[in-house]
Parts: sequence; structure tokens; C-alpha cells
Amino acid sequence: MACGEFSLIARYFDRVRTSRLDVETGIGDDCALLNIPEKQTLAISTDTLVCGRHFLADINPADLAYKALAVNVSDLAAMGADPAWLTLALTLPNVDEAWLEAFSDALFDQLNYYDMQLIGGDTTAGPLSMTLAIHGYVPVGRALKRSGAKPGDWIYVTGTPGDSAAGLAILQDRLTVSDAADAAYLVKRHLRPTPRILHGQALRDRANSAIDLSDGLISDLGHILKASGVGARVDLDAFPLSEQLRRHVEPEQALRWALSGGEDYELCFTVPELNRGTLDIALNNLGAPFTCIGQILPESEGLQFTRNGAPVTLDWKGYDHFA
Amino acid sequence: MACGEFSLIARYFDRVRTSRLDVETGIGDDCALLNIPEKQTLAISTDTLVCGRHFLADINPADLAYKALAVNVSDLAAMGADPAWLTLALTLPNVDEAWLEAFSDALFDQLNYYDMQLIGGDTTAGPLSMTLAIHGYVPVGRALKRSGAKPGDWIYVTGTPGDSAAGLAILQDRLTVSDAADAAYLVKRHLRPTPRILHGQALRDRANSAIDLSDGLISDLGHILKASGVGARVDLDAFPLSEQLRRHVEPEQALRWALSGGEDYELCFTVPELNRGTLDIALNNLGAPFTCIGQILPESEGLQFTRNGAPVTLDWKGYDHFA
Repeated sequence: MACGEFSLIARYFDRVRTSRLDVETGIGDDCALLNIPEKQTLAISTDTLVCGRHFLADINPADLAYKALAVNVSDLAAMGADPAWLTLALTLPNVDEAWLEAFSDALFDQLNYYDMQLIGGDTTAGPLSMTLAIHGYVPVGRALKRSGAKPGDWIYVTGTPGDSAAGLAILQDRLTVSDAADAAYLVKRHLRPTPRILHGQALRDRANSAIDLSDGLISDLGHILKASGVGARVDLDAFPLSEQLRRHVEPEQALRWALSGGEDYELCFTVPELNRGTLDIALNNLGAPFTCIGQILPESEGLQFTRNGAPVTLDWKGYDHFA
Repeated sequence: MACGEFSLIARYFDRVRTSRLDVETGIGDDCALLNIPEKQTLAISTDTLVCGRHFLADINPADLAYKALAVNVSDLAAMGADPAWLTLALTLPNVDEAWLEAFSDALFDQLNYYDMQLIGGDTTAGPLSMTLAIHGYVPVGRALKRSGAKPGDWIYVTGTPGDSAAGLAILQDRLTVSDAADAAYLVKRHLRPTPRILHGQALRDRANSAIDLSDGLISDLGHILKASGVGARVDLDAFPLSEQLRRHVEPEQALRWALSGGEDYELCFTVPELNRGTLDIALNNLGAPFTCIGQILPESEGLQFTRNGAPVTLDWKGYDHFA
């Protein structure tokens, strides 16, 4: 194929559907040039997806583009930020034009949806992988950090964690779901998770801390506990499981996936008692459910789980890429 | 090896030698949070380095860290920007602690040298590669773009391009240099190129356009010509070649490397006649030589080369990653 690097970039990625006023120079110079509005803090997050580790080799390129962006947008959601720009570093084993067209079409659809602009990146030859860096704004001093949780805060999650792990199990033939609609729902939760951008923004000034669930609740809530120097009690009976998950998966396995399956990209956040009323009002019209699953404790209490009001021991761990 | 991802990141990359005032939150939350000073435009550049393509598998990790950062800093230099922050997405086949220690030590030495801070990134398992995104500032409206060259501008390069390609040839046993000091010089120009940050900053308000020489002069000057809608005449006799290169390489091969070898990370820039005087004063005390190699022409003239005052034809191309 005689399609060189420069024409490759130009053809598939140098199209601007969304032209943001804060982008002075996008793709095509040594650097992108961006003018940040006053009184806004820049939020940046970077994620790498490696073929065979973070996605299956035969994944539909449109699903891959969707998920690659959603995973990064989810990090902005967890800070309460507005999405703004993307850089994409794409490493490809060869130039497959059909793949590139499907991938870039889906990517630009999603960028357009979030009013984001692709401002640069790199295209290299090598084993299939990609690194996305996402940039957004949050008003100065109002970002949701992991470090703000305080004893007494109520712990919430959005959505129904565990669905993504069940969807992956279906894709890998480890789970059979006879009902086609339920199977489709679970697979979609894995392939097309919903970044909770509006929830994150509504949590500014209301939540004391937030994180997105990429590695599973045990691991991700653990990050909040460590950063905040607190402990927590999680009530397993309160944990929100989807009907689709409960219909096809044994209760213990469903809970295991919900707590340690990962890749749900729901938000986990902590809210002081005083803000619970305005929280209900602010989140109620945003579609996804949000559920109180426990409470922040002093650090000396560690991470505890209860079932039927009694303490239980869990030995499940979060996902560790090198474990 | 029982070293998990989180402890890996914490151990080698979560050390702050340079703590910048503009970094509100660095590594350790869902996003980094950055506060940009007023009247500064943010400049961002992204580069991916793949093992076997952009560096040799047995490269010294300290050299790799140096070059990975230098290549990115060079993009800031080409815009006239000040370096500020780095994100590093590192994909590793396994956890090699000696490698990580040497790599991260060298990286932090360089970050410290440029007063830069590592603000985030990702660590994943997979074939060895890395994507660096570098962020810097340039005063509003004063960035050096590729698109500003005008007919009549004089074309300059810093340093002595071609040395890097000769150094690579030595490393790959394609070139034998008997003099040890000369060989070491050329290899060092390949492994440890010098980003021309101070030159770039001195060119603000003086140069009409600039680019860094990553793919070779023919390719990179070509980007200026295309972006500016102009042509150019390059005088091959004026092209600056190092003594070390000229002592050990045939004149034709030396020129070929200088024009199309790539990876020199010198600057190529264009300056209107009116600014040549202040240019000499501004650049003279910065160490590296700078040489006028030709002049910008109207677009209809294309890219021309002359030798002894007469036109010559070259069929060398810039480096193309998929060619």
C-alpha cells in the first residue's frame, strides 16, 4: 500500500467537525496552540490501550474508538470537568484503510457529541496500541479530588457496576445468556460504557471526593481511602445490580463482578450528610441511577464489608495489569 | 516479580524533583490539574517511540529517556515555547527494575534541567513503546508557526545537520570512523540531540516561520513551504556540515545525510531581511552555529537546489514511517 504517513494522517484525522474557539492551531504544526479561558483549571488524563490487553484483536474498530474515548472522558467526569480536546497517538501494524475509516468515523462522531476537538497526536508503525490524552476544564478550585473524603461522608455509585464484566464474559464465551436482549445490554455496557460527565459536573460543590470505576470498586474506592486517609464500610446488600445481571448470574458471582470486575466507568463519590438533599435534586434528572452503598469511617477502621448488618470478609482484588 | 502496576508507578515515576507553581495536582488523581498563567498560550506536542522503529532494542535506557524527552522538547523549541509539563505513557513487556531505574533517573535529570514536571501518564503491559506529551507556554500571539514564511525570507538552520544520521550509521556498523573522538561526537549527536529551546525563544518576533528537523531538511522545509504556500531555493554549498562528518564521510553521502537523514532536531526557520541584524545579535551568544542556506521564493518556483550557482536535481526523500 503506497499510503505514506503524512497522507494517512491528513486523510483520516485532519478533519475538523468541531472547531473550538479555544483552539488557535490544531493538527499541522510542531505543536497545537490552545488558549485557556480565564478562571478555568486545565484537567489532563492519559490512557494507553494495548491490543490483547485492553481490547480484543477482533474488536469492531468503531467500538474501539468509542471505548477509547469514553474511558478518557470518564476521567474528566470523575474530576467534574468539561471535555475540550483530544490528542491521539496511534500505533498500527499496517495501513488498513477500512479499519482506519471505521475507527476515525466513530471517533469523530464521539468528539462531536462532546464538543471536543482532535488537536494532535502521532501515527507510528508497530504493534497495535493507542495512547489518548484528554484535556478539559473545571472552574478554579472546584475539581473533585480523590483526597477530599471525610469520615461520615456517604458513599455513592452511579449506574449498576458489574454489567461490563458480565458483557466481557459473554464476548469471551465464559457466560451464556439465553435472553438476547439481556445479552445485548450486558455486552453494550462493556463495549460502550457511558462516561458520567453530567453527573460529575453536578457533583461540584456537593461531593467531597470522586473517582471513576475502571479497576473495580474495591480497588478504586481504595484509592479514595488512601488519598483521603480514611476508612469505609460498604453494605453489600445495598449494592446496585442490574436486573439483567441478576437474571443470568449467580448472586455471589454478580457481586464479585460488581466489586472487582472493572471497566464500568461509573462514578464512585462521597457526600457529606448536609449535601444529600441537593444531591438528590441535582442528580435525579440525569438518567442513570445513583445509590448510597456505605459510609466513610476513620482511617483506623480500614475497608469493611457488611451483609445483613454483619461484617463479612472478601478476598477479591482489583485488576492489576502486571499481576 | 511481585511488583504490581500501582507500586511500579509510585516507585519510579511519582517523585517530584521539580514542583512547579502551575501544577495544582500532579500524579495520583483521575486527572492532573494545571493553572495556566494569564496571557500565555498552551503548546502541546505528542510523540510515540516504538522499539525497533524509533530506537534500537539494546539502547541504554538513560539514552532512551534523554532522547524521548529531547525529541518532544524540540517541538516546543520550534514554536518558541517554554517547557512546562510532561505526561508519559509507558508500555513495557515486563517489570525490569534495573531498566526502570536507569530510565527514570535519566528522565528526571532532564526534567529537572528544563524545570519541567511529570504530571501523569499510564503504565501498561505490552510491546515496548512510549508516548510522551509535552506541554509548554508561549506568550499569546508570539508562537512560531510553519505557515508564516514569505517570499524573500532568508532560510536558516541551527547546528550541523547530518551528524545524527552518521552517528546512527556508526551504531549500525554501516560506517566506520577510525578517530575515536569523532566517532563519539557523531554517536552523541544521534543519541543525545540538543533541543534548541533558547534559539526558539530568541526567534519570537524575529522569524516568520520555524520547524524542527526530525525527518530531514527536504521533508521538514517542505512542511514550511506547503503550510506557507511558498517555494524556496537552497544553496547546497552553504549547507553547514560538521568537521567530524566531513573528515569521515564522502561529500555526496554527507550532504545526503544532512538533507534527508533526519533526527537532528536542529531548527529550520525563515527570517525577513529587516530582522537579520537583530537575529545575529540574539543568536550569537547561544552557542550553536546558525547558517543561512537559502531564500524563500514564490510558490510557483517550487523547491530548488543550487550548487556553484547552478541548479541541481535531487531525488532524495524525507523519512516516511510507512513507506
